[in-house]
Amino acid sequence: MAAKRVGSQTLAFSSLPRLIAMHAIVGTNEGQGPCGEFFHEIVDDDLLGESTAEKAERKMLESAVDQCLKKGNLVPQDIQYYVSGDLLNQNISAVFSARSLAVPFLGIFSACGTFAQGLGLGSILLDGEFADKVLVGTSSHYQTAERQYRYPIELNIQHKPTNQHTVTGAAACVLSLSGEGPKITHVTLGKVVDMGLKNPNDMGSAMAPAAFDTLDQHLKDTGRSIDYYDLILTGDLGRQGLKMLHVIAGRYNMKLGDTVQDGGVLIYGDNPKYGSGASGAACSAVMTLGYVNTKLYLGELHKVLLVGTGALLNQLTIQQGDSIPTIAHAVAIEA
Amino acid sequence: MAAKRVGSQTLAFSSLPRLIAMHAIVGTNEGQGPCGEFFHEIVDDDLLGESTAEKAERKMLESAVDQCLKKGNLVPQDIQYYVSGDLLNQNISAVFSARSLAVPFLGIFSACGTFAQGLGLGSILLDGEFADKVLVGTSSHYQTAERQYRYPIELNIQHKPTNQHTVTGAAACVLSLSGEGPKITHVTLGKVVDMGLKNPNDMGSAMAPAAFDTLDQHLKDTGRSIDYYDLILTGDLGRQGLKMLHVIAGRYNMKLGDTVQDGGVLIYGDNPKYGSGASGAACSAVMTLGYVNTKLYLGELHKVLLVGTGALLNQLTIQQGDSIPTIAHAVAIEA
Repeated sequence: MAAKRVGSQTLAFSSLPRLIAMHAIVGTNEGQGPCGEFFHEIVDDDLLGESTAEKAERKMLESAVDQCLKKGNLVPQDIQYYVSGDLLNQNISAVFSARSLAVPFLGIFSACGTFAQGLGLGSILLDGEFADKVLVGTSSHYQTAERQYRYPIELNIQHKPTNQHTVTGAAACVLSLSGEGPKITHVTLGKVVDMGLKNPNDMGSAMAPAAFDTLDQHLKDTGRSIDYYDLILTGDLGRQGLKMLHVIAGRYNMKLGDTVQDGGVLIYGDNPKYGSGASGAACSAVMTLGYVNTKLYLGELHKVLLVGTGALLNQLTIQQGDSIPTIAHAVAIEA
Repeated sequence: MAAKRVGSQTLAFSSLPRLIAMHAIVGTNEGQGPCGEFFHEIVDDDLLGESTAEKAERKMLESAVDQCLKKGNLVPQDIQYYVSGDLLNQNISAVFSARSLAVPFLGIFSACGTFAQGLGLGSILLDGEFADKVLVGTSSHYQTAERQYRYPIELNIQHKPTNQHTVTGAAACVLSLSGEGPKITHVTLGKVVDMGLKNPNDMGSAMAPAAFDTLDQHLKDTGRSIDYYDLILTGDLGRQGLKMLHVIAGRYNMKLGDTVQDGGVLIYGDNPKYGSGASGAACSAVMTLGYVNTKLYLGELHKVLLVGTGALLNQLTIQQGDSIPTIAHAVAIEA
């Protein structure tokens, strides 16, 4: 049995990889929301002066990487791997952001759960003595996601109440075994779960079973209860998905209480303009590196479990009548 | 310095992960080519009786995974991670193939270099004691790739001589520290390289600099010369890309000789119907698991370096005037 495993699905890191530098950038809507104060940077213009939203998303991710390295007093040569992915076809934001770094690149994809996968993979590279420092990044943009997954925003299609609103933002962090910062103690990488749901306008309900599956497995593997954590941050399930998660947990006699909160619900608050709440690969990334990290630093939180969820569909799978496969990866972070 | 590194970019695995089970399926054209005898299975119908090419590609990958596990006398519960990716938007072939496995899933993307990234990541998971057995898979399909990256085949668009023809196929293998099979000794994960080339009809020329960069770095890191290997299998560069690789290597006084061969050239032979040769995530996978593995088994080859290359573009980046970022990952395999 591989030495670094606990239970059937969880990895325990004795070396305790740390988040030693980070930068979270958000768009104007996210900056005006109730979590605005927690982000490191809020842009004035969601297009950043670029001619297309795709180029703007890329620029935002490049800037997050740049600022993150600066904060850590690091240059790209100090980094052994850049682990990154995003929602766009063929991960183009991640790929293009890797061009100028000249650092070995690992492209990853778990849709909105990409950041959690990245933290997991980064920790594996450090804990296994394959690297000293790993850079993890991701991004998403409301306009690029609408255009690719739904309709260009110019068509002004009315959204359903269960629709989620893709976060405009980008975030990057450096993981290292030396230095100061929150520690990653455990990672539970998730299975693909598909309960047969087919409504692309309600991805929260589709993802809730994956979130439960990984959360439940993580708790079993580590022998912990919900109360072990000060905060279990799911996301992005949105209000609808979080409600479904409570329903599923209830069936298994698990009480989530107030410990479980969703990044997609927190970031925009109660504003009905954003439907069921936020989604997007950047959402759980900026909430982890902005909101969670600040509260760990201030001592308001001590032990946090990120349960990053992703809906692994594309336009064609919906058109061809397929259901929506989903995934969730859990990352335990301590002050 | 992380203990498992040699040189600036290469990992050396003292535990020697082995390819203990594998299955490579190809389409009808690939089966009729000069390498046909090396593949484990050739389908009669590239659509496998499915209503769409996307569903056919998925079925092929599911079948490769299934057959691979059977050959290893394994069930999904024996596997700790399924590492998979493909060329389709949001990795849908990989994702859907993961649904029925109920094995933690790591979605990856390096375009046609995805299989090499998967072998690298699988070896890392084993060598770092994070897993006992890792399943690695990938697929591609001529019709799905044409439809997504170029034009639906129904339009019968004439191809350029530098165009590559996407391999229809799927392949899966199990990596394990115990059992019999070829060993993975080193992995050199590559950087994103972009020399400014913009022609999507000549991806071979765009990828050649990445192939050289990773090959050169691998040789420097390990202190080896080209001659150390019996075969260096690039791919998929095609004839045009391989020519460019020779040109670049020549400028650095590196003689590639006959040791360097390209999977995209070998698989279809000289048939002009396939333009510059093959491409597709399945190409280097079926060539490694079919062609290379058979020759390792027969003693015709002993030491092989796979240099899996990928062009990390999408339709939108070309439309928006971007150049083509590329990547190459090298995996050293010994009998």
